[in-house]
Amino acid sequence: MTVSPLAPKSFPVLPVIGGVRFSAVAAGVRYKNRTDVMLAELAEGTTVAGVFTRSSTRSAPVLDCQAKNDGSSTGGAAIIVNSGNSNAFTGRAGREAVERICDAAAENLGISAARVFTSSTGVIGEPLPWERITARLADLRDGLRADGMEDAARAIMTTDTFPKGSSTEITVGQTAVRISGIAKGSGMIAPDMGTMLVYIFTDAAIAHGPLQELVSDITEQTFNCITVDSDTSTSDTLLVAATGASGVDVTGDPGFAAGLEQVMRDLALQVVRDGEGATKFVTVEVEGATTDADARKVGLAIANSPLVKTAIAGEDANWGRIVMAVGKSGATANRDRLSIRFGDIWVAREGWRVPDYSEEAASAYMKKQEIVIGVDLGLGKGKARVWTCDLTHGYIAINADYRS
Amino acid sequence: MTVSPLAPKSFPVLPVIGGVRFSAVAAGVRYKNRTDVMLAELAEGTTVAGVFTRSSTRSAPVLDCQAKNDGSSTGGAAIIVNSGNSNAFTGRAGREAVERICDAAAENLGISAARVFTSSTGVIGEPLPWERITARLADLRDGLRADGMEDAARAIMTTDTFPKGSSTEITVGQTAVRISGIAKGSGMIAPDMGTMLVYIFTDAAIAHGPLQELVSDITEQTFNCITVDSDTSTSDTLLVAATGASGVDVTGDPGFAAGLEQVMRDLALQVVRDGEGATKFVTVEVEGATTDADARKVGLAIANSPLVKTAIAGEDANWGRIVMAVGKSGATANRDRLSIRFGDIWVAREGWRVPDYSEEAASAYMKKQEIVIGVDLGLGKGKARVWTCDLTHGYIAINADYRS
Repeated sequence: MTVSPLAPKSFPVLPVIGGVRFSAVAAGVRYKNRTDVMLAELAEGTTVAGVFTRSSTRSAPVLDCQAKNDGSSTGGAAIIVNSGNSNAFTGRAGREAVERICDAAAENLGISAARVFTSSTGVIGEPLPWERITARLADLRDGLRADGMEDAARAIMTTDTFPKGSSTEITVGQTAVRISGIAKGSGMIAPDMGTMLVYIFTDAAIAHGPLQELVSDITEQTFNCITVDSDTSTSDTLLVAATGASGVDVTGDPGFAAGLEQVMRDLALQVVRDGEGATKFVTVEVEGATTDADARKVGLAIANSPLVKTAIAGEDANWGRIVMAVGKSGATANRDRLSIRFGDIWVAREGWRVPDYSEEAASAYMKKQEIVIGVDLGLGKGKARVWTCDLTHGYIAINADYRS
Repeated sequence: MTVSPLAPKSFPVLPVIGGVRFSAVAAGVRYKNRTDVMLAELAEGTTVAGVFTRSSTRSAPVLDCQAKNDGSSTGGAAIIVNSGNSNAFTGRAGREAVERICDAAAENLGISAARVFTSSTGVIGEPLPWERITARLADLRDGLRADGMEDAARAIMTTDTFPKGSSTEITVGQTAVRISGIAKGSGMIAPDMGTMLVYIFTDAAIAHGPLQELVSDITEQTFNCITVDSDTSTSDTLLVAATGASGVDVTGDPGFAAGLEQVMRDLALQVVRDGEGATKFVTVEVEGATTDADARKVGLAIANSPLVKTAIAGEDANWGRIVMAVGKSGATANRDRLSIRFGDIWVAREGWRVPDYSEEAASAYMKKQEIVIGVDLGLGKGKARVWTCDLTHGYIAINADYRS
C-alpha cells in the first residue's frame, strides 16, 4: 500500500498529555505482523464525551459507548480499540464480546467496567475473536507509556495509508492546556455522524455536560462536513477525554473551543487526505444560499457526486456537472442566479458561462493537487464548507477486493 | 466503444404505430459521422403526456416541455431531439434556441409551435448551435418514415453503447393496440424523475388527463426505481404520445396500463443494462419494511452505495456492506430483525450470519452476471424493487475524460 499523495509530510510531534498513557500490541485479531489493539488509560477524574454514527445498524461497541456516555460514572477510565473486525451485525455474541473486553480491561486497570469505552473497526458481520484481545490485556497494561500516542494511531489503521494525529496548545490565564488527537478513516466516510474512529485527549478540566455540547457543535462543522464516498459506517466513534491534569477549568473558554475545533478539523481533513484512491483534495465553498442548511446540502451534493469526483480525477474543468449536482441537491436554487468558480477563476456567473471563459485557464487550474470549487447561489446569506477527494481507479481497486 | 455485456442480444422489431413517422439526420451538432437529430411527427388528435426531471437546474427544453404539457393544444404535434449538447445552463440563449427549433419545426410540418416538444442531451453549459438543427429541418421532414423508429433511437445516443427499444401489443375488445418506445441513458442516472430521454408511442386513444396520471404512476415503479450512479440529469424527459389511430379508447383499461408498464419497465432496465462501465445487472428486492416508501429508501441506499457496487464488481459476497447501507438509509430498521440473501442463499437471518453460512456458495453466486440482493427488514409489509449495476474501472475511465 503506497502512502496517499495527499498525506502530510510527517506525523506531528504529539506532546504528552498529563493523565493519559498509551500502549499497543499485535493481537492477531485479523492482520498479521502489525499492531492491531490500542489501549489508552485515563486518570481518575477524566471527563469523557463522544459522538457516534447515527446508523440504524450501529455496532455493539458503539451502542455500549452511547450507553456509557452520560457522565454519570467517575474514577479512572480507559479506551480500548481493535482494528480488523468491526464487531458489527454480530447480534448477542457482539454484546458479549464487548462485555468480556470491558471486564478484562477493568480488572487489569483496577477501574469500573462502566468507564471502559471500546471501538472495533474492520470487516462487518464476522464474530469478533475477543479472547485474542483479552489474552493480551496484561501486556497492554504493562506497556503503557505517556509518549505512546503515535503507536496507538498506527494500531487502529485499516485501509488507511498513513496514521493521523494532530495537536495544539492554548494558554488559559498563565497556564498551558494541551489538546492532542488521533484518527483513522479512509473509506466508508460520509457525514451526519462522528466519522470513523477519533480519540482526542486534553489535560483541560471540564465537566461532561459542557464538554459534550462543545464536541457535538464542533462535529457539525468538521467531521460532519467531510465525505469520501457517501457511505456511512456502522462504527463511527469520536471520543474526547479531558483529564484535568493541567488544573485549568476551560468551561466556557473560547480559546479552548477554538483549539479543540482546530484539532478536530485537522483530523477530519487528514481522513479526507487518506480517502481511498484519492489524488486530489477538494474544498467546496458554498455561499449565497437561503440557509446554512441549504448551503451544506449543495456542498454535499457536489462532494458526493460520482460525476463531479471523476471529472476532478480526470483534471476536467467540467462545471456542467456542478450545475447538475446543485440541481439535484434539494436545496432552493435558481438557475439564473447561480455562479461557479474554480479557485479564483469564475467560469459561470448568474446562470451562464462567463463571456471571457477560458478553457485553458480552467484546465490548468484542475491540474493542481488542491482544488477549490466555489458556488454562489445568489439568493441569501447561507454558507457552508465541505471537504472531499476525487474518485479514481484506486478506489475501485481497493474496494473490489477489500475483503478477500 | 464496446457494447455493454448486459445488452439485449438484438434491437427488437418495433411495429409501425399508426399516426407516427420518424426521421434522423447527421446535423453535426457536436458528433461527427453519426446521426444526432431525430424528428417524430405525430398525427392530428395525438395526446402527449410527460414526466420530467425535478432538478432545480432543469434545461431550457425541459422547461419548455413542461409549459406545453397541459393538454390544452390539439392538432398535429412533433418531438425533435438532438444529442451532443444538452442546452442546459445556457440562460436566455437556451430559451431562444428552443424557440427557433420549435418555430422551424412548426413551419416545416404545418403545425403550431405550442405542439412541438424538444429535448437535448449531451454537454451542459455550452451554447446549442441551433442553426445546425434548423438548417436540416426540411431534410428531416422529407425523410419521415413510419418504420424509422430504430434510426430515431440511434440518433439520441450519447455514452450509450446500444440503442434501446421496446414494444408490446394488447387487445382491447377485438382490436389490437400497439405501444412502442425508445430511450437513451447510461450515466447521470438516478431516480426521482423521468430518467433521461424516453419516447413512447401508441395508437391508443386516451385523453391527456388520464394518460398523464397513468404515466406518472408507472414512472414511480419503473424509471424512478433505477439508478446507475446516483446523479440526476438536468434533461430527463419521458414523453408518451397516443395517436388514437387504432380507434380504441383505452381510458381506464387495465390491459393498456399493464402494457404501458411493461414497455416502460423494459426501457428502464435497458438503461441500467447500459450503465456506464456496468458488468453486472443487480435487482434489489426489499420486503418487511414499515412502509413501501421505507423499502424504497433501503433499496436505493443499497443500489447507490459505492461500497456495495464495487463489492459486486469484485464478485465479493460482502454482505456487511449491505448492512451498512441499510443502516444509513434513514428508513426504520432494527438490526436484530434484519435478514439478507443473495438470490436464494440466505447469508444473514434476524441480525446475524446464518449458522451454516457458506462463503463458497455465496462467492459462487456472485460470479453470475445477474445478481439479486434480497433484504427482509422483518418489521412490516412494505416492499420495493430497485435496479442498478456495479461500479467498475469502466465507469471511472468513461467519466474521467468524457468532455475532453
